[in-house]
Amino acid sequence: MAAAFLPATSLRLTPYSTLRFLSFFSISNPSYSLFRPLRRRVLPPFDAFPANSRRRCFCTAVSESLGSGEGKKVDNYEKRFGSKVGEFRKKLKIAEVKGGADEGLGRVGQSLNIMGWVRTLRSQSSVTFIEINDGSCLSNLQCVMNSDAEGYDQVESGSILTGASVSVQGTIVASQGTKQKVELKVEKIIVVGKCDSSYPIQKKRVSREFLRTKAHLRPRTNTFGAVARVRNTLAYATHKFFQESGFVWVASPIITASDCEGAGEQFCVTTLIPSSHENTDTSIDAIPKTKGGLIDWSQDFFGKPAFLTVSGQLNGETYATALADVYTFGPTFRAENSNTSRHLAEFWMIEPELAFADLDDDMACATAYLQYVVKYVLENCKEDMEFFDTWIEKGIIRRLSDVAEKEFLQLGYTDAIEILLKAKRKFDFPVKWGLDLQSEHERYITEEAFGGRPVIIRDYPKEIKAFYMRENDDGKTVAAMDMLVPRIGELIGGSQREERLEVLEARLDELKLNKESYWWYLDLRRYGSVPHAGFGLGFERLVQFVTGIDNIRDVIPFPRTPASAEF
Amino acid sequence: MAAAFLPATSLRLTPYSTLRFLSFFSISNPSYSLFRPLRRRVLPPFDAFPANSRRRCFCTAVSESLGSGEGKKVDNYEKRFGSKVGEFRKKLKIAEVKGGADEGLGRVGQSLNIMGWVRTLRSQSSVTFIEINDGSCLSNLQCVMNSDAEGYDQVESGSILTGASVSVQGTIVASQGTKQKVELKVEKIIVVGKCDSSYPIQKKRVSREFLRTKAHLRPRTNTFGAVARVRNTLAYATHKFFQESGFVWVASPIITASDCEGAGEQFCVTTLIPSSHENTDTSIDAIPKTKGGLIDWSQDFFGKPAFLTVSGQLNGETYATALADVYTFGPTFRAENSNTSRHLAEFWMIEPELAFADLDDDMACATAYLQYVVKYVLENCKEDMEFFDTWIEKGIIRRLSDVAEKEFLQLGYTDAIEILLKAKRKFDFPVKWGLDLQSEHERYITEEAFGGRPVIIRDYPKEIKAFYMRENDDGKTVAAMDMLVPRIGELIGGSQREERLEVLEARLDELKLNKESYWWYLDLRRYGSVPHAGFGLGFERLVQFVTGIDNIRDVIPFPRTPASAEF
Repeated sequence: MAAAFLPATSLRLTPYSTLRFLSFFSISNPSYSLFRPLRRRVLPPFDAFPANSRRRCFCTAVSESLGSGEGKKVDNYEKRFGSKVGEFRKKLKIAEVKGGADEGLGRVGQSLNIMGWVRTLRSQSSVTFIEINDGSCLSNLQCVMNSDAEGYDQVESGSILTGASVSVQGTIVASQGTKQKVELKVEKIIVVGKCDSSYPIQKKRVSREFLRTKAHLRPRTNTFGAVARVRNTLAYATHKFFQESGFVWVASPIITASDCEGAGEQFCVTTLIPSSHENTDTSIDAIPKTKGGLIDWSQDFFGKPAFLTVSGQLNGETYATALADVYTFGPTFRAENSNTSRHLAEFWMIEPELAFADLDDDMACATAYLQYVVKYVLENCKEDMEFFDTWIEKGIIRRLSDVAEKEFLQLGYTDAIEILLKAKRKFDFPVKWGLDLQSEHERYITEEAFGGRPVIIRDYPKEIKAFYMRENDDGKTVAAMDMLVPRIGELIGGSQREERLEVLEARLDELKLNKESYWWYLDLRRYGSVPHAGFGLGFERLVQFVTGIDNIRDVIPFPRTPASAEF
Repeated sequence: MAAAFLPATSLRLTPYSTLRFLSFFSISNPSYSLFRPLRRRVLPPFDAFPANSRRRCFCTAVSESLGSGEGKKVDNYEKRFGSKVGEFRKKLKIAEVKGGADEGLGRVGQSLNIMGWVRTLRSQSSVTFIEINDGSCLSNLQCVMNSDAEGYDQVESGSILTGASVSVQGTIVASQGTKQKVELKVEKIIVVGKCDSSYPIQKKRVSREFLRTKAHLRPRTNTFGAVARVRNTLAYATHKFFQESGFVWVASPIITASDCEGAGEQFCVTTLIPSSHENTDTSIDAIPKTKGGLIDWSQDFFGKPAFLTVSGQLNGETYATALADVYTFGPTFRAENSNTSRHLAEFWMIEPELAFADLDDDMACATAYLQYVVKYVLENCKEDMEFFDTWIEKGIIRRLSDVAEKEFLQLGYTDAIEILLKAKRKFDFPVKWGLDLQSEHERYITEEAFGGRPVIIRDYPKEIKAFYMRENDDGKTVAAMDMLVPRIGELIGGSQREERLEVLEARLDELKLNKESYWWYLDLRRYGSVPHAGFGLGFERLVQFVTGIDNIRDVIPFPRTPASAEF
């Protein structure tokens, strides 16, 4: 059994000979053959510290004795000890070989090298087909090998199983098959790392529930690889949109002892509990306490109770009222015991904040943002999106194209209530002016009443919204908005913030909140207050919306939920 | 006193009239005058829910009774209730007015509107100069106003103090002064929000220590505004570099109950302590305990002790061995009680991981990354960098240009020891093969021995490095590297990871680490293992390196340190 766990022989080389099969490709020289070593090295004879003496051999020609004159020191040290750091070369990936309009036909005849993991291997009488994936795209590179290829013995000996890592050299040829335009005619194959036969990611389909227990291996599947790439593209598109619009990314704090977070149950962050991974048998008596038997927070790391943030908004406002337009993009936390397919204890939030802006500007920004990132994914993740359209949610590309192209609609909360009251269907939750909208109501409005179009509902009753939202002139509603999208319901929630000091203070009094805790938040209204607005977007909800994946645990690499923080 | 806190009269408008002074500028029409409302609205007579009825007025022309036919429902709802969301318009910022090679001369004669905060106001006999900053760049827009300008009475009444927010309309003219090429000849000024005279950010210089107690206002200063912009640019350049190199951004988990983190003291994350912001008088007795008086972790949120992550590397490796090249960029935590100018309890880390890569590739990537982001900042933050060069660290632009252009050097740890032993100076910490290098040693090597050039030291003794680093053939050293830069010392630390299952298992045994905890990490070596390498970079150290700011608390918006988690 142990033998099966050993890496292939080719791995048992000196650390530097690794390079013999690691190949890098210079962008300016795409036909570079990767088995020709780029950086030829003369290995020195072994001495006490061979790695080090190897360095020296770089500069043998220029080596000289260490100078003692201070003036010459720098030069001498550089010549005596230093050698240059090599040039960084982007690896040639399968996406580059097969991507592009011609699907690789422009590379026919090129000799190249690809490294990746074996997805399948099938041998026919005279020819062996190996499908290799390197994670750069959904599709594999089909490698066709005859028995005269170097390393073919590894096929015969059964070293090349699904999951094994390989380095393959060959020539791109037009494919005989219909599934791809080009394939690689193999000249040489090296098994970099064998795969034990217990590998759980075999060709047969396994459930997503099972794969959650293998979160370290699931990105090797088609679905989770595609989710990872689309998630990455959404994150980058988010940065691009805000940066191109002149917003500044602000790191809102994760740990906060500030009293003015409010909403949502929070995780406590502490060093009072003298626990560690090694020793979790912690006596209650070890926790510092006051004479009265209370926890002695003064001995905690921050000198008082500290929590994981539930939102970076209030901190974002401080920077928006200095830099005009900012956004946060970071993790936030809820300690709610919700074991559903919609909730995570740890998730990423995007929270832009715009100064000199009202609710209309806020809605316009949220709409432009969503359309931008959706369009960006449709244009840059075509293959992955076709996969989702075929296997996860039929018609998702059409649905997203509508979002990217059609104008969004807005309507007042009061109108939304009117629509719901007239709806020819029964809801589980009551519909009445003054009550919050439930997911079933939100989805009815966007999916049915407005036929799948995203809808923004605005001007909610102030009683069901947060203290910081700007009061409308009616005295009953606040300048809040929720963007509803099909399948998800609320995707984005935002508001204009109350910038009038006396109104905000009155609201804090009304809600019996401690004004002193909010001293710095109120300061923003004391010193050059401006109308400002912002919104929040749960990043994982966005990934769900764009991929069609129904369980939120499958759109974040390592989901944290009640009783689960594995990996 | 209370009256001084009130916003200026012009703010006490109906929520929608806000737009009268909020101005947005269409990129395709830069001469758009911002006091001409873009979205004209007919305010309806007040009724029960005016915000809502206002919406209706958009579609008065097409309003009709709610259709009852199901087939027509969508259309009717849209016409009856929905109105379109407005177009998102980028605000015109001072950076756009004065930026560019001509410093604004191309805009002479343009009528435009700028919103921002007053930095200074000085009145001469016939003319008043107001310097306005909107956070988009370091420099202010000089606004020149005669007594015939609309709103001049607010100058006379003293409403326009440092810190007040204003909206200014006027015409760009060539400046008489030498400090700027253009200025704004004011036609109209509106005070958006007054500034109370207690405003702590006055023109006189205040200490950075003091400003740490005003973290919500300090981005309004020159120094912290510049730091925020450079920090933002470094973050975006980081994403750009990795995205353009084919890396996938991976969200490594923040909360982890995994046993294999190891290094560094960790914060415990718990819901066992029934505390909240409102009620921090928590009795020790309220913590669930077992019969033996131990903390009952089974009742905690995750069912066992959970901690804040100290590194996303091990998680990153799982994705690198599926997607080939990945990077994390997220917060990490250390609960060490270090009250120094170099340590934060919460900081952001960038951790790339490259598959099919060895230590040479890792060094090449780290070097290319650092050169890319430094170059990007020098090109995109010219004004801010000149500010740092003048006021924070003389010569920083020259130093950074060297980093961006010169080749980096590498040398072995053994050679580094030799250099240190020969150094003609006394170190506080001993120098001996087998001991770790201290900051004084690192800085001597990069600053003195190599004259200010970044140097990578590689192949450290395995005893002073982490278990996962790949053992070199000498059996004594591991394929680790630290990049040293002047002023900071170690900026980047990385290694090739041990990809050989049997070597890694032997190392875990040697260190008496529990192999079962590492089951998923070892799986990566069981199933298609590949040579892989990565590095870690503390983002705040990078911001310090690029700005010259000496205290790490001044390069993150809201620093968390022992006894301090305010805001």
